[in-house]
Amino acid sequence: MVNDLIFPDILLYLLDMVGVIACAIAGTLLAQHKGFDITGCILVSMANAVGGGTLRDIALDRHPLFWMTDLNYMFVITATSLILQTFFHLYHKIDRAVKLFDAIGLAAFSVIGFKVALHQDMSPLIAIMMGVWTAIIGGLLRDIVCNQIPLVLQREIYITASIVGSVAYLFFDYLGMNAGLNEFVMLGIIFWVRMLALRFDWHLPSIRLVD
Amino acid sequence: MVNDLIFPDILLYLLDMVGVIACAIAGTLLAQHKGFDITGCILVSMANAVGGGTLRDIALDRHPLFWMTDLNYMFVITATSLILQTFFHLYHKIDRAVKLFDAIGLAAFSVIGFKVALHQDMSPLIAIMMGVWTAIIGGLLRDIVCNQIPLVLQREIYITASIVGSVAYLFFDYLGMNAGLNEFVMLGIIFWVRMLALRFDWHLPSIRLVD
Amino acid sequence: MVNDLIFPDILLYLLDMVGVIACAIAGTLLAQHKGFDITGCILVSMANAVGGGTLRDIALDRHPLFWMTDLNYMFVITATSLILQTFFHLYHKIDRAVKLFDAIGLAAFSVIGFKVALHQDMSPLIAIMMGVWTAIIGGLLRDIVCNQIPLVLQREIYITASIVGSVAYLFFDYLGMNAGLNEFVMLGIIFWVRMLALRFDWHLPSIRLVD
Repeated sequence: MVNDLIFPDILLYLLDMVGVIACAIAGTLLAQHKGFDITGCILVSMANAVGGGTLRDIALDRHPLFWMTDLNYMFVITATSLILQTFFHLYHKIDRAVKLFDAIGLAAFSVIGFKVALHQDMSPLIAIMMGVWTAIIGGLLRDIVCNQIPLVLQREIYITASIVGSVAYLFFDYLGMNAGLNEFVMLGIIFWVRMLALRFDWHLPSIRLVD
Repeated sequence: MVNDLIFPDILLYLLDMVGVIACAIAGTLLAQHKGFDITGCILVSMANAVGGGTLRDIALDRHPLFWMTDLNYMFVITATSLILQTFFHLYHKIDRAVKLFDAIGLAAFSVIGFKVALHQDMSPLIAIMMGVWTAIIGGLLRDIVCNQIPLVLQREIYITASIVGSVAYLFFDYLGMNAGLNEFVMLGIIFWVRMLALRFDWHLPSIRLVD
Repeated sequence: MVNDLIFPDILLYLLDMVGVIACAIAGTLLAQHKGFDITGCILVSMANAVGGGTLRDIALDRHPLFWMTDLNYMFVITATSLILQTFFHLYHKIDRAVKLFDAIGLAAFSVIGFKVALHQDMSPLIAIMMGVWTAIIGGLLRDIVCNQIPLVLQREIYITASIVGSVAYLFFDYLGMNAGLNEFVMLGIIFWVRMLALRFDWHLPSIRLVD
């Protein structure tokens, strides 16, 4: 009831689509940069946008895959990629917006992956990991297909933000918070940690070995 | 009836094997070039030849995987790879044949992936995508394992040929064409588009960003 | 009975964990070398340690995945990676031990993959391949994520050792050897072949094409 009022699934779905658009833009930009053609750019965009959720669903044995029954994902990704390929000279005008979209996507993807794993009766640790998978594996696949060192394993506040949000959810859940409200709080925390990290250029330490 | 007469499954199976041989040759050549040993070359050949169908079957939740019940795939790939590794100096004599085999494989893999998805009651859009997956993901995996920019995302008339064939199938199906004949037409269209692209060096435009 | 006495599953489990530790160390070292941060190193360690078993279980449709129900895998990998990242200057002192652990892991992973496939009623050929998958795909994923040419496809006595062990198992099984004892023999053979290959620097020939 409260769930329905405060945090209906339709809102999560819309935020999910915002994240999908951000991923499709990032995938298309990198693929164009690598010299891929129109269909190659679309494929990389799809890997970036639904790759994480696809691997999560395969790992959790959820079939059919979410984008096979809801074709909106394919339409939104293809349209985003084609529009960007046609008007890519306008990209610098939307650069700021894409960072925002990307942070929204990180939060929405994490919440969805975390929720899905809990609904499959996974342990909280696996749920945290499925939130991280959903949020980062798309970007990982994009970088692997484009033959690059994965960015998401370096710009670490991605993974950390997702974990912080999941841990907060589990903590508030333990305190008895309503699940719908809690998802909303989790979404806000991940978004907020990511934006703070972007603003203040936060990084986890990385220990580089000397050869 | 007409189906059995005009386009028996055994023909599709044989064309599939022709494609598997072409993929095994391409995988072995690239793996040798990268300095992989005998078993490494065989593994890359397998990734190239059955990788697309494997990911398709996993995504569609079809088990056991096709090469687990029909061991001919493993035998044909291993034999092709070993023969090529032993007599690789003869490769330039079969160069032309491999291009032809590869185009046959593109057509057969696309038809099989498209058919399989439709049999699983997927929407036509997903069936088109599964045709593309089956045809290109093997080559994508080969290039990823060998640490190269994927060729199939650049030589785009691969993906485009597969999509054109699938769309033609859906169009003729709408007009009421017999399914067996239609598969035959789809196979011919993909093969023909690919051969035309090779002959006239067709490419989709690729928009390369300036750094 | 004899099985329980000579080769209880708990021993195989412990050897499995030794292999997991070796993989977590190898994954963390390469990830640090590539400049990944703390969480990035942990993720690469996980890919290296459970990637092979995960793909095997997905290919064989075994759900839930082994590390989803037994959280020890995640704990051991995370602890190993964090300890190594904190005290990485001590690594050269454990270099020898890691090679030994790695050979133990190769043997344990192969036996587990092979057994699991036979229990799923797969043909012996597929079981041999699942042994190889379990043993090498983790290292393959690590190298792919870190944008490197995969080592396991070059240092071939990995794959060969796994195959030799599986073939020996099938041969002794044909002669009527007790399954539990046979697993123990298979484990010993793979470990022994790998150690011999390390000691005498054995390699399969690799035919490098001239450009």
